[in-house]
Amino acid sequence: MQSRYFTINGFPQGTPGRELFELHEAELPALAEGEVRIRNTWLSVDPYMRGRMSGVTTYIAPFTIGEPLEGAAVGEVIESRHARLAVGDKVRHMAGWRDIAQLPGEEVEPLPGIEVPEQAYLGVLGMPGMTAWTGLNRIAEMKDGDNVLVSGAAGAVGSLAVQLAKARGGTVVGIAGSAEKLEWLESHGIKAVSYRDRDAAQLTEALQGACPEGFDVYYENVGGTCLEAALNTLKVGARIAVCGMIARYNEESASAGPGNLAMILIRRARMQGFIIFDHWNDYPRFLEEVGPLVANGEIDYTETIEEGLEHTPDAFLSLFKGANTGKMLVRL
Amino acid sequence: MQSRYFTINGFPQGTPGRELFELHEAELPALAEGEVRIRNTWLSVDPYMRGRMSGVTTYIAPFTIGEPLEGAAVGEVIESRHARLAVGDKVRHMAGWRDIAQLPGEEVEPLPGIEVPEQAYLGVLGMPGMTAWTGLNRIAEMKDGDNVLVSGAAGAVGSLAVQLAKARGGTVVGIAGSAEKLEWLESHGIKAVSYRDRDAAQLTEALQGACPEGFDVYYENVGGTCLEAALNTLKVGARIAVCGMIARYNEESASAGPGNLAMILIRRARMQGFIIFDHWNDYPRFLEEVGPLVANGEIDYTETIEEGLEHTPDAFLSLFKGANTGKMLVRL
Repeated sequence: MQSRYFTINGFPQGTPGRELFELHEAELPALAEGEVRIRNTWLSVDPYMRGRMSGVTTYIAPFTIGEPLEGAAVGEVIESRHARLAVGDKVRHMAGWRDIAQLPGEEVEPLPGIEVPEQAYLGVLGMPGMTAWTGLNRIAEMKDGDNVLVSGAAGAVGSLAVQLAKARGGTVVGIAGSAEKLEWLESHGIKAVSYRDRDAAQLTEALQGACPEGFDVYYENVGGTCLEAALNTLKVGARIAVCGMIARYNEESASAGPGNLAMILIRRARMQGFIIFDHWNDYPRFLEEVGPLVANGEIDYTETIEEGLEHTPDAFLSLFKGANTGKMLVRL
Repeated sequence: MQSRYFTINGFPQGTPGRELFELHEAELPALAEGEVRIRNTWLSVDPYMRGRMSGVTTYIAPFTIGEPLEGAAVGEVIESRHARLAVGDKVRHMAGWRDIAQLPGEEVEPLPGIEVPEQAYLGVLGMPGMTAWTGLNRIAEMKDGDNVLVSGAAGAVGSLAVQLAKARGGTVVGIAGSAEKLEWLESHGIKAVSYRDRDAAQLTEALQGACPEGFDVYYENVGGTCLEAALNTLKVGARIAVCGMIARYNEESASAGPGNLAMILIRRARMQGFIIFDHWNDYPRFLEEVGPLVANGEIDYTETIEEGLEHTPDAFLSLFKGANTGKMLVRL
């Protein structure tokens, strides 16, 4: 059986172009004992993948040039030599960026039985959702009534973070770019602030207008002027969960950081970076808490979908233009 | 009775000059019920005082133009209308920057009975020492064997931080400027690294040379290139205690921050600012633990002393030139 998969042909500096990605086709080897073959139905593209295209180990090993790229995917088992997995099982695994995946059954996880569309396990009930929940609860230690600021607030992680925060009763402000995203936020009761055409001082003023008392928690997905403005609006004892800094991922050389880091001292604030893979033991707890909210419609989620394996690189690259509201997915 | 005291005549931008400070003399009012009169013997000058000369409330109210400045001092009670305090008592209080202080007895604290010179209660057993201990133990949650990096390592706070860290068994590296300070550090078993004539990349390399495995804890007193280099040398899970950023206190406008803040994410590090006044309940615990070490000579401390009230502003201003090894004091 043939598998079609994407590779990269180098480690780009700056913003990658479409030509970085190459689509290959190869005959799969015979299924070994313990392996399964999966027809992928949905692929995830995520900002963190940019870090794996840089040739250096950050918190995760880089991709190998010429080898199939990796990423979260869901699909259906079409052939199995693993006792725990049967043909027809819906599963999640990390052999994305391809149509047919073949891998050891140990690396494959059956989808939980909550009544949601299967691709939700790549978004609101998958890594991005788990990341939102962990950042708020475990890293920022959000309490009921906390005022919460989220950057990248209409993205895959941010769109869940704002809703989880809103349910705790405080003022929630989301920073986003496009009119569509700002509308999505407002329609969910979130105060929406645009970062577009604003420098850090102007963004600070807009945030202070939206929440004059300041923020107990800042959920950081973006960096750059968002971070600088957020630092100006912290309450004493504020906690910052650093999930990502997408504004910087395509920089060829590091640009300067915020000039107001001393606010960490003045506000006795705490800023902590985290990687979701360190917290995966909490996944069942997250699922138990958030799964029912998604299933019964209390948590809304939105998706931006590209159709067809060949558009996977386009879906990935558009993340850095802010093209997605909610989770960016590729449907095969 | 006359009291001589310093005031400031404005809120300076940038580095203050000597002309900011004015020495006044005034007749003290009659001692009210509950008040005491104290002849100050030692005055403390500290970097945080610069923040009180800016006219804005940061974590502490600004000084009032034309009113006596404040700061820690020790002295001897010479007149008392307070039941708890008697003539001859050695005390500590915040009515510094003057020779004779008069204030309510509630704001005056008898010196603890540990066998150390009285001015130690302004340094190693006072606010700076308590700050070092709290930053390491409460904020950075230092553990035995942790590798610890300290900037401003030969200053009032840093000189205790390096010794407390060293006693826990890990590699301790101190960043300082002058040859005298570097020598002081080396003579106490601390690996000393100079920041002078080094940019962040060169300082990073020097720190990596001194401790190739990287640091579990960074005790931040300085900011600027020290912070940028430190971020490059963190171990996964590192904790940064932000005590001060003296490199920035005299800036007229904020200069850019470190371009490598994403290291917080990559190293899953935590950076937390703190103000010692929030932690003063722990002072008895600190004194119990560190007091005996100072009394029996296990913890060394060093002082830089100016003589005479009229030199208090010079002592203060020289802090920003790094003139002090250990605690900067004024002896009256």
